[in-house]
Amino acid sequence: MNLNYPNGKKYRPKEVSIGTRGKNNKNSSYSNRGMTLEDDLNETNQFYRERKIAVIHKKPTPVQIVQVDYPTRSAAVIKEAYFKLASTTDYNGVYKGRYIDFEAKETQNATSFPLKNFHQHQIEHMEEVLDQGGICFVILRFTKFEKVYLLEAQHLLKFWERMRNGGRKSITKEEIEQKGHYIPLGFQPRIDYIKIIDQL
Amino acid sequence: MNLNYPNGKKYRPKEVSIGTRGKNNKNSSYSNRGMTLEDDLNETNQFYRERKIAVIHKKPTPVQIVQVDYPTRSAAVIKEAYFKLASTTDYNGVYKGRYIDFEAKETQNATSFPLKNFHQHQIEHMEEVLDQGGICFVILRFTKFEKVYLLEAQHLLKFWERMRNGGRKSITKEEIEQKGHYIPLGFQPRIDYIKIIDQL
Repeated sequence: MNLNYPNGKKYRPKEVSIGTRGKNNKNSSYSNRGMTLEDDLNETNQFYRERKIAVIHKKPTPVQIVQVDYPTRSAAVIKEAYFKLASTTDYNGVYKGRYIDFEAKETQNATSFPLKNFHQHQIEHMEEVLDQGGICFVILRFTKFEKVYLLEAQHLLKFWERMRNGGRKSITKEEIEQKGHYIPLGFQPRIDYIKIIDQL
Repeated sequence: MNLNYPNGKKYRPKEVSIGTRGKNNKNSSYSNRGMTLEDDLNETNQFYRERKIAVIHKKPTPVQIVQVDYPTRSAAVIKEAYFKLASTTDYNGVYKGRYIDFEAKETQNATSFPLKNFHQHQIEHMEEVLDQGGICFVILRFTKFEKVYLLEAQHLLKFWERMRNGGRKSITKEEIEQKGHYIPLGFQPRIDYIKIIDQL
């Protein structure tokens, strides 16, 4: 089975990813086993919660449910459903009373980050969060180099605007290095983005 | 089709509820047409977002996806999936930079609110949010009287603790009236819970 979400993201059943990759990694020495950005962030968020550093969760994948079977009183089976475009970002939560909101994306591209990884609804959501005084950013990973950056939403919005005005459809790696914050990969937590937030 | 979620909540396809009830209500005079608490809160949150008062969203229903068909390159169809128990509350977002987090439940019961409407994971999540300085509460509706209350999570946690120590499995209506905050139903917004938060 090799499926893609409408957004081009690979579909991986959760049970598999958590059972055979996330858990194994926990009690073994540090090395990258081809974990996705989502795996790394889930582990990071779990670490933050366990240490009472922050409470951040990934939102469930939005699904449009069309048909549900009810073979027994206790078991509902969804027989037809479709992936929906998210109207917000994937991650949010609380850090020291403050609202935290972010989206995480990775690219195979070596020299730039394609803006098609985001969609208009998410950009509008980020604007609304900033208006409301929330802390909003994106976490971008270049999978080829295993390099992860935090880019504040303010900057992403400017690059989006540039594209809408006919400019380039991506952010160059240099621009991300300049405007963003490099997050060195760690063992626990894997992607310590809260440390960057403390510096903002 | 008369289905129930594992938690006993009635299953209602989203398109139907939004298309034939939510929208009609908007441009007509105020009266209750048997809208669910979720409908009312969705309208309220939309009102808050449009007026830039707050950015609060309901999280998607968590679904465990087991089988996906991919008949064409662009259309993925989920053929088998199951409802999962939520690990957090249903609603969260940002108000003036502060993190807001709540769960909403309704009961047909006239004299008390059964605690079985919540589950252990949600209670633990509320504790974590309070620890982290977030604003956390539940919105409770007695459908028989159309009465809606905001009860701060601190109080819910005490009632939960009482139950775990062998005490009653519900919160009496009197207790909710005493510890909670009555939210009079309005036209726009329907359930003005932000007004209560301002008073806390």
